[in-house]
Amino acid sequence: MMDVAIGVDVGGTKALALVVARDGRVLNEVQVATPHDESNGAGEATATALTQQINELCDRHGYDASQIPVGIGLPGLVRRDGRLAFAPNLQSASGADLVALLSKSLSSSVVFCENDANCAALAEHEWGAGRGIDDFVMVTLGTGIGGGIIAGGQLIRGRDGFAGEIGHMVVEARGAICKCGGHGCWERYASGGGLGRMTRVAARAGKFPKLVARVGGDPENVRSEDVTEAAAEGVDEAVGMMREVGWWLALGLANLTAILDCGHFVIGGGLSVASDVVLPAAREYLVDLVEGYESRPTITVATSMFGPRSGAMGAALVAFERLP
Amino acid sequence: MMDVAIGVDVGGTKALALVVARDGRVLNEVQVATPHDESNGAGEATATALTQQINELCDRHGYDASQIPVGIGLPGLVRRDGRLAFAPNLQSASGADLVALLSKSLSSSVVFCENDANCAALAEHEWGAGRGIDDFVMVTLGTGIGGGIIAGGQLIRGRDGFAGEIGHMVVEARGAICKCGGHGCWERYASGGGLGRMTRVAARAGKFPKLVARVGGDPENVRSEDVTEAAAEGVDEAVGMMREVGWWLALGLANLTAILDCGHFVIGGGLSVASDVVLPAAREYLVDLVEGYESRPTITVATSMFGPRSGAMGAALVAFERLP
Repeated sequence: MMDVAIGVDVGGTKALALVVARDGRVLNEVQVATPHDESNGAGEATATALTQQINELCDRHGYDASQIPVGIGLPGLVRRDGRLAFAPNLQSASGADLVALLSKSLSSSVVFCENDANCAALAEHEWGAGRGIDDFVMVTLGTGIGGGIIAGGQLIRGRDGFAGEIGHMVVEARGAICKCGGHGCWERYASGGGLGRMTRVAARAGKFPKLVARVGGDPENVRSEDVTEAAAEGVDEAVGMMREVGWWLALGLANLTAILDCGHFVIGGGLSVASDVVLPAAREYLVDLVEGYESRPTITVATSMFGPRSGAMGAALVAFERLP
Repeated sequence: MMDVAIGVDVGGTKALALVVARDGRVLNEVQVATPHDESNGAGEATATALTQQINELCDRHGYDASQIPVGIGLPGLVRRDGRLAFAPNLQSASGADLVALLSKSLSSSVVFCENDANCAALAEHEWGAGRGIDDFVMVTLGTGIGGGIIAGGQLIRGRDGFAGEIGHMVVEARGAICKCGGHGCWERYASGGGLGRMTRVAARAGKFPKLVARVGGDPENVRSEDVTEAAAEGVDEAVGMMREVGWWLALGLANLTAILDCGHFVIGGGLSVASDVVLPAAREYLVDLVEGYESRPTITVATSMFGPRSGAMGAALVAFERLP
């Protein structure tokens, strides 16, 4: 029918819904706080909030919510049938079948779910910083690290649809504990969360007097935002810390290069925009960290073209592509 | 023309050439030591040795060497055009275009090169322990670790053909130095080479009196074979060490699971046959190491069906598949 879809990116803190045209133009948006209420059953509160968002957008445009294709990007392991199997940052919806819940509330048969970072990868591949590139990895640096892998021009989904959980690649055996239950996961080092954590560890050891003074003297009060802010003002301790995060980022990108031979990375997420230190440092360190670097064509590291919108745009794309 | 091909697996120490039928039957074989002579130029000595092997097999069967499809599995980064871009274990052929060299010496237009572990993955996928499985990783545990990735039923080759270098995924940041120039690569822990190295480190610290006594008292003399042998006899120190290698193996398999959501692994290489401790230990440790293990269907770890022949069999398969 119409050449638009609604894409929603459901994060741990907020849900962004967009009306997206088939050529990638964003026609409208609604953002709400993500509910975490479990009292009505897994996913019910999420489904209610998303239904309101989608209906609001449909009202604005005069669309029939039962007819418009809807794609939902979810933060966690999303099964090929759309069920959210495991979601440490959205536990109220863990295990929920949002396709079923939304199909019912919208009286629709065109609702589809996909992992949020996979959505972002698809959007960048179709319209953005990965356009025309057959082998790249989308890396989203937020509290954790999300990933979406394009290989041979196709999204790698894996056996159950769980591929791309690159943030839980262990890069430091028996290292820092992770929300997933593991130790030494990449996202404990190269994300916004990792930046905050590593800074507090160093601050406790007395290494960052300037940063600690800026937050009132208690090392435990240092957040990642304080470090990016101080780095932007040129505070040497903060710049050094951001370069350290860049080193860890490069380490994981080098691992992905070894495994996948992706020649390109698209970096999104809050940390990628909050800092102009991390990505240049990562590019610099890649030269030493990639196996056989000199034997390979140049490896490029780009920033996301759509920033915080890439997930919702990709969710709309999923809806377009899966339409019967 | 005929429904056979010759596949050669060129390792750092030996080269195995097989005559393989389209249905996977092995009809004949010749094995020679791999030459490492560089005096005539990169790859010349290798090409001469392979030409002799191939001619020998053709003579035995009355085949015309210029007509029979030939596939070569090479230990290193093999470009999509067949050139061996980087080969730490076969430096005399590093940079060589063996397709050109062999096409000339055999007067053939049907010579193809591919990475050796990619070949093994293809053989196991077509005829062996990965048959009918769309998402699995072939892991070869030798001196190092090789890998071949099947995702969505297809071999992942990457931008330049270099995908599957899983042994150089860093699992211990700033860890043990590796032949590739990096630090903390998986193959420094979970391979035969890693077993020997880690055992010597522990032996130097006085931890393995029984193992050291068995090799005459000098910790530096402990080789991986000594450990596998002692483990087979039930020596507790050796069994413990093999279980440690199993833990490291599981760590890397868990990383690959997170990244690729491959539900199956096929393990080959010398260490997989030398020990009945490593794989069971790895299966056991996987439960703790895989993110969201309980939310996933069972992850299976099988042994290679063709053992040391899988690389050469897969090289023959490459030749079948790329025939114009």
